[in-house]
Amino acid sequence: MKAEILSTGNEILSGSVTDTNSSWLAVKLLETGIRITRQTCTGDETEGIATAIKEISNRADIVLVTGGLGPTIDDVTAKAAALAAGDKLDLNQKALLSIKAYFEQKSRHMPEINRKQANLPLKSVTMENSCGTAPGFHMEIGKALFFFMPGVPFEMKKMFKTGVVPEIEKRFGVQNQLFSESFTVFGLPEAEVGTRLRGFHEKFSGFRLGFRAAFPLIEVKFSCQGMNTADEKAENAMKQAGQWIFSRLDKRVVSLQGLLMEQEVGRLLSLSKATIAVAESCTGGLIANMLTDVPGSSDYFLLSAVTYSNRAKIEVLGVNQDTIIKNGAVHRETAREMAEGARRIAKADYGISTSGVAGPGGGSDDKPVGTVCIGVAGPGFSKGKQYYFPFIERGMNKKIFAVTALELLRRELIMTL
Amino acid sequence: MKAEILSTGNEILSGSVTDTNSSWLAVKLLETGIRITRQTCTGDETEGIATAIKEISNRADIVLVTGGLGPTIDDVTAKAAALAAGDKLDLNQKALLSIKAYFEQKSRHMPEINRKQANLPLKSVTMENSCGTAPGFHMEIGKALFFFMPGVPFEMKKMFKTGVVPEIEKRFGVQNQLFSESFTVFGLPEAEVGTRLRGFHEKFSGFRLGFRAAFPLIEVKFSCQGMNTADEKAENAMKQAGQWIFSRLDKRVVSLQGLLMEQEVGRLLSLSKATIAVAESCTGGLIANMLTDVPGSSDYFLLSAVTYSNRAKIEVLGVNQDTIIKNGAVHRETAREMAEGARRIAKADYGISTSGVAGPGGGSDDKPVGTVCIGVAGPGFSKGKQYYFPFIERGMNKKIFAVTALELLRRELIMTL
Repeated sequence: MKAEILSTGNEILSGSVTDTNSSWLAVKLLETGIRITRQTCTGDETEGIATAIKEISNRADIVLVTGGLGPTIDDVTAKAAALAAGDKLDLNQKALLSIKAYFEQKSRHMPEINRKQANLPLKSVTMENSCGTAPGFHMEIGKALFFFMPGVPFEMKKMFKTGVVPEIEKRFGVQNQLFSESFTVFGLPEAEVGTRLRGFHEKFSGFRLGFRAAFPLIEVKFSCQGMNTADEKAENAMKQAGQWIFSRLDKRVVSLQGLLMEQEVGRLLSLSKATIAVAESCTGGLIANMLTDVPGSSDYFLLSAVTYSNRAKIEVLGVNQDTIIKNGAVHRETAREMAEGARRIAKADYGISTSGVAGPGGGSDDKPVGTVCIGVAGPGFSKGKQYYFPFIERGMNKKIFAVTALELLRRELIMTL
Repeated sequence: MKAEILSTGNEILSGSVTDTNSSWLAVKLLETGIRITRQTCTGDETEGIATAIKEISNRADIVLVTGGLGPTIDDVTAKAAALAAGDKLDLNQKALLSIKAYFEQKSRHMPEINRKQANLPLKSVTMENSCGTAPGFHMEIGKALFFFMPGVPFEMKKMFKTGVVPEIEKRFGVQNQLFSESFTVFGLPEAEVGTRLRGFHEKFSGFRLGFRAAFPLIEVKFSCQGMNTADEKAENAMKQAGQWIFSRLDKRVVSLQGLLMEQEVGRLLSLSKATIAVAESCTGGLIANMLTDVPGSSDYFLLSAVTYSNRAKIEVLGVNQDTIIKNGAVHRETAREMAEGARRIAKADYGISTSGVAGPGGGSDDKPVGTVCIGVAGPGFSKGKQYYFPFIERGMNKKIFAVTALELLRRELIMTL
């Protein structure tokens, strides 16, 4: 079975936006056992899209198309689909009702401009969009079955699950299941992860092994194709492969479930029934933001004080003024007192803190950009550590500082369990 | 002039790696005045790549190819190029010397496996790779000029600048410059922005107009092709187009420079020489994180207190306990007192706050998920407002709550300038 992806949009073609939809779709389709053989991206021109559709319809069995279903004049994918199929556009009543229902649910009247989104090829079958105005549709063109989805990632993802996958299974049957697991790893460069896992394919033939850098974590993904959806042999092989990989990465593995650092820390805090308070300087709220991205985090997250100024460190967190005068703000002892202060004022079980130089400015010979001091305080202990990371970009530094602070907390938490 | 991009690699096709090379190349090529008309991605199969090359050679004038020039057996792009061109591979002495030189410079002997990288199509001309082993090459296939570059981003970028751009300028001359501007807009759905800008193309023929949703902002981008790099007529037309667009979006325009909300707020705070403190409940540090993502934010950002618990709101921010008991945490008055508290404890000029229900849990009939109260305090004033946003996803709610709080501050700031 040959499957292709066609993404449309001047913003992708011109490079203003990186196309993340295509990689997401390739991964998800592979999970159902179907491999993508080509990806194409065209701009928002009817002729250009129609030409691409026609070419692909001669090659592929399944085609996933994203983008160009919006209400504005540069959204021309439905028109292009009709042109390529020798079909014509017509007002689709079902699509119109669904758009109207979307607005009604928001207690708004449908603007006239959105009516255009219900103009779909006559031969097409609509797919519901429960979180946006653009209805999707599928139709046969040439020898291929085309699925047209909106370009907005969360609308597309929802529609892929509720509209596309069931239709593929209905038409082509359930493919052999892909057994797949991923570990998240922190503290090793990607090349080193690769070196440590050399020999995997010789030992586990038929397996796929992949690495994905989700800075500063690395996701190690391994998979094998089972014979059917409940294949004991494949499950056993997966278990052995997982153990082999774990034995080589050991303490660097953050999560055997592929969780992000903040998800794993949240899971451990919940398990320990412990609470956390944060004092952030250079990470500027990123740690709090990461922790509170996890649903249910209000059970354990009490406070983060983002104290950029020394005065706030002293007055809000109760850091000793002499500590800062003597050592400066970026220092192990300052970080330790910040963590203690956050823990104390929030009456939390644990406190963590960051104070460092994220850049691009603010570095010195002594404390160059990339330097961070991290404090951890818990029941009966507190400590401060200094690290240096060789990045120059502010966003990368904030990220690796935040994840390092959470990693120090994670190590404390697993020792108590 | 038609230009296309062809990227090769199973890791891109399967979605393990997002193809960032293509968007980088599209942006850089556009800066030289050349627009990409299509992007294609194939796997690491000789036949598949050769077929794609042949198809593209019938459509395009310039083609940028990345990937598949490495030393391992799955690197087959040179072979595919020869196959598509009806040419054959031969050991290229210049390429071999350059690979050897690369290893010598690192005081290493060239491994035998790397010799393969010097096997290039007979008709090709090599391009130097100063930071890796894979030599690039360009050659004419069909009516198109193909540039073959390595897939490693920093090697590709260097080769594009030193090998590709000079060759394009030599062959085709320097292209006309693209004049391009973008506005960021907040508070209007994309469809409404489209409706308001209807008639743009009739009034400004030859212009391109595009919308990009960068939730919750919308970027409105307009551009025209100048006759040369300093074209007064095009510059004037751009000015008029900008004024026309602004007159229709008016107060919804956040930035005429395409800045993000946090960048614009930072710019206005710097202009006003004012400082800011934040009290965050439901946004969980996101406002602080956004503000501190802007380099130089330490000049105006003093403090954010991420106070999830009521106790922290009362003890850290000094919110009146009775206010919370009487109204609850998600209330205009609570938000107002939080903003005042943050401003007071940080001795900042402005204070903003959020208290709301980001979901997925925690909603009630009275305060459903999507409800947020925002406080703003400044010299001689403080206020609290309640909003409701119809999103169910936690991340989207945090984002729109944060941007709305910054928007309220932005409106206060522009009134003082």
